[in-house]
Amino acid sequence: MSDAPVRTGRRARGGGGAARRAERTAVSVETAKYIERNVPNYEVLTDAALDVIEANAETVLADIGVNFVDNPAALALWKDAGAEIDGERVRIPRGLARKLCATAPSQFTQHARNPDRNVVIGGKNLVLAPVYGPPFVRDAEGGRRYATMADFEKFVKLGYMSKWLHHSGGTVCEPTDIPVNKRHLDMLLAHMVYSDKPFMGAVTEPSRAQDSVEMCEILFGKEFVQDHTVMTSLININSPLTFDGIMMGALEVFARNNQASIISPFIVGGAMAPVSVAGTLTQVLAEVLAGVAYSQLVRPGAPVIFGTFVTSIDMNSGAPTFGTPEASHITYGAGQLARRLGLPYRSAGSFCGSKLPDAQAAYETANSLQMGLLSGVNFMLHACGWLEGGLVASFEKFVMDADQLGTLHHFARGVDLSENGQAMDAIAEVGPGGHYLGCAHTQANFKEAFWRSDLLDYKPFETWDEEGARDTQVLATARVARMLETYRQPMLDPTIESNLRAYVAEKKASMPDAFG
Amino acid sequence: MSDAPVRTGRRARGGGGAARRAERTAVSVETAKYIERNVPNYEVLTDAALDVIEANAETVLADIGVNFVDNPAALALWKDAGAEIDGERVRIPRGLARKLCATAPSQFTQHARNPDRNVVIGGKNLVLAPVYGPPFVRDAEGGRRYATMADFEKFVKLGYMSKWLHHSGGTVCEPTDIPVNKRHLDMLLAHMVYSDKPFMGAVTEPSRAQDSVEMCEILFGKEFVQDHTVMTSLININSPLTFDGIMMGALEVFARNNQASIISPFIVGGAMAPVSVAGTLTQVLAEVLAGVAYSQLVRPGAPVIFGTFVTSIDMNSGAPTFGTPEASHITYGAGQLARRLGLPYRSAGSFCGSKLPDAQAAYETANSLQMGLLSGVNFMLHACGWLEGGLVASFEKFVMDADQLGTLHHFARGVDLSENGQAMDAIAEVGPGGHYLGCAHTQANFKEAFWRSDLLDYKPFETWDEEGARDTQVLATARVARMLETYRQPMLDPTIESNLRAYVAEKKASMPDAFG
Repeated sequence: MSDAPVRTGRRARGGGGAARRAERTAVSVETAKYIERNVPNYEVLTDAALDVIEANAETVLADIGVNFVDNPAALALWKDAGAEIDGERVRIPRGLARKLCATAPSQFTQHARNPDRNVVIGGKNLVLAPVYGPPFVRDAEGGRRYATMADFEKFVKLGYMSKWLHHSGGTVCEPTDIPVNKRHLDMLLAHMVYSDKPFMGAVTEPSRAQDSVEMCEILFGKEFVQDHTVMTSLININSPLTFDGIMMGALEVFARNNQASIISPFIVGGAMAPVSVAGTLTQVLAEVLAGVAYSQLVRPGAPVIFGTFVTSIDMNSGAPTFGTPEASHITYGAGQLARRLGLPYRSAGSFCGSKLPDAQAAYETANSLQMGLLSGVNFMLHACGWLEGGLVASFEKFVMDADQLGTLHHFARGVDLSENGQAMDAIAEVGPGGHYLGCAHTQANFKEAFWRSDLLDYKPFETWDEEGARDTQVLATARVARMLETYRQPMLDPTIESNLRAYVAEKKASMPDAFG
Repeated sequence: MSDAPVRTGRRARGGGGAARRAERTAVSVETAKYIERNVPNYEVLTDAALDVIEANAETVLADIGVNFVDNPAALALWKDAGAEIDGERVRIPRGLARKLCATAPSQFTQHARNPDRNVVIGGKNLVLAPVYGPPFVRDAEGGRRYATMADFEKFVKLGYMSKWLHHSGGTVCEPTDIPVNKRHLDMLLAHMVYSDKPFMGAVTEPSRAQDSVEMCEILFGKEFVQDHTVMTSLININSPLTFDGIMMGALEVFARNNQASIISPFIVGGAMAPVSVAGTLTQVLAEVLAGVAYSQLVRPGAPVIFGTFVTSIDMNSGAPTFGTPEASHITYGAGQLARRLGLPYRSAGSFCGSKLPDAQAAYETANSLQMGLLSGVNFMLHACGWLEGGLVASFEKFVMDADQLGTLHHFARGVDLSENGQAMDAIAEVGPGGHYLGCAHTQANFKEAFWRSDLLDYKPFETWDEEGARDTQVLATARVARMLETYRQPMLDPTIESNLRAYVAEKKASMPDAFG
């Protein structure tokens, strides 16, 4: 694959790169670079509190242990590493898991087929990816309905067009019209063809993880994939303290192929974890320690992310709740634990429980997004489009949230203390009782000074009223339509595209359909 | 006034207090104590950056100076203190303003007529007060319209009924049906009669500030008012660097009577301050230093608050914008400056530019409220009800925001690291693959574990759909109606009430009506 044709979809190398880049950007859209924070993180816990939680997590691993279910090979690896095996229970001596985690990289690059879209996950960076997993979609016109592959493709296109989104994500919605054993192929194809941003692999069976690797080998070249991380995939832990064979099987495929996994407790506080923040953090840390340690047993150095998905349960209705203060405590605290462990951190998102992209949705989402930035999250899945506790991917909310992600970029820039930033000349020029609208400093700086929404309404009341008194959802419906109308597919080598399509067709033909 | 009757509206003292309290609480409603933060503040600026801004602010005061307009007495005070006077310009030698500020208290108690509602402003506390100043109101039924005294009274009642609101505020909306020279009397009467929470005085003329003091003397007793702070009022600085005679006249009345003032630059960034964050912070600090120093010249020890109202301008439309990252930088930075100066801090609020209580309003508001908590704000005016850049007080948004204020209370509690908080017994009891719903720790803690909204929808989709698929605004309309239906006036000594009404009637009869 090193003699790729000029119209390549994969990483440009060697001569002619500039020409290719020019051609490619002709059909490309503006995407902001991933966030590099120039502001501090918020630390809700003291070092003493973190010490307690870390010691408790070691106690959980040593005394209670974790279950590796349907996975004799994992038990064997753990035994060799020094753990005590009792049936499927793995008890990990104090300090062993943390020691094994040390080979995991503190940051890694995930490559995109357009190298301008590569992301570095870890450190002070924040990479934003869209909602993952909803079986339903909603828009103003069609209401709430089961998601289809056509919806999926629309979301991939919106993600590609969204300036503040760095990553195409994975299962942006479940294409329920495609058999469950085949949909991963169509989903991956859509990410590869309709976007040039990085994406996620399939995790629902180890064989589907393997298919993901093979499709990446077509897109990027086989050698390139062995040497470079081109997928970041979501491996959920079956909290409390359980690692099921299917998810671990997918993790094993990705780790062996040097592909990244988010190792993520899935916590509904009060159901899968204690109702207390410190208790939940203890369990989260124990689970991540065990999961990351296992990834390093499979392949030392495999790239992984410390994941934390957290919501609390409404004890009256049993429903999950979002944007709550307890979830914030956990998200801030888990970030501190991840940094002490030296691992990239995944948490937060456009979380809300609301059924509609209304004020409830926006309060809950804004609370989650802001805390995500300040808690030091490095990879934010679900950064836009999440609705109804994750059951629904909303077209309108996707663009509403994606617009708000701009506030995170601007906040993360920090405060400019240069001479120009200090603006002493401007204060002297304007003086008491004057105004800054026309002064030299304002003229020189106003274009870059303030973040500006591409969606929200700032018009005078009368203009807004004459134009139909539109609320945010109505504005978002129009924006979705406009983005899809102006969408153009990013260039991809036709040979690669046809090889991908042939792979998908062949794979699909080799299996009977399976639903549910 | 020390021999007050049993049914008193003012501070209970001496014998019979318990009986009175019991009687009073019989018609009272639950109000949370003001927030006492058990979490750290977020510090966006380094000490070195703060040093630069502080030095620059001294340069502004010394070299450029500030204007005290239509106020020869203020110029005389400044001259005696060592400032250089040039017309209305006051140039303040480096260090003088900061030195004068040292007599201002770092925290103070504002007393309410119900002593259970007293608030301590400063330190790690956060006191929440409603929107201030809108000439319009909006609700779903009546749309947007000029505010009336009937609207004002409804807002005072809603504020009294709101659990997470500690303060009744001031001009919750402008009662435009009352002559402008008389409306302060009706507004104060409404706060005093319809609520028992602390409130703000009138600032639109020095004489109206004096009326406020006199009405407080009727409500609390003359001696009590001289010894205790019973009002916190809003004194805006006419940014840039201008202190007008009317606002300063009101400040003088309050300071002389030991009543508190928020000394608050009113900044639309790019218009009244530089377009840069550091430049704006420099100007804010210079203005507050000059204003607070002046308050201490009038009466050393007068309680004051370091205020910062900040929005940036949309350079395309000229409209103010809210919930933006630049406003967050300034709010965090000003909090750091206030703490270094040892003064209570006022900023943030339910800010938004939206015309409706929709998703835009909620995103912008949530961004502002969260940053208000983390920036160390001690007094948050506009904490609920703000709409359309402050032109509109919204009934629905008032209760929506007031509900969200609960998240600030719960977040501020911090993380419980007690043995119960660590929940190690629960993790051991449940073990891998179990669930926590029925475990002993959950049973013992679930009621207090999670903040729960009194407004937002957590129901299953099907239930919600059957009940009319209501969005947040529809739920809020119902909540406003329910609160006003169940409102009961807190007990007040009938003699005091009739004395207050007589004072208002007499004052109003003594003046011709003035509008505009």
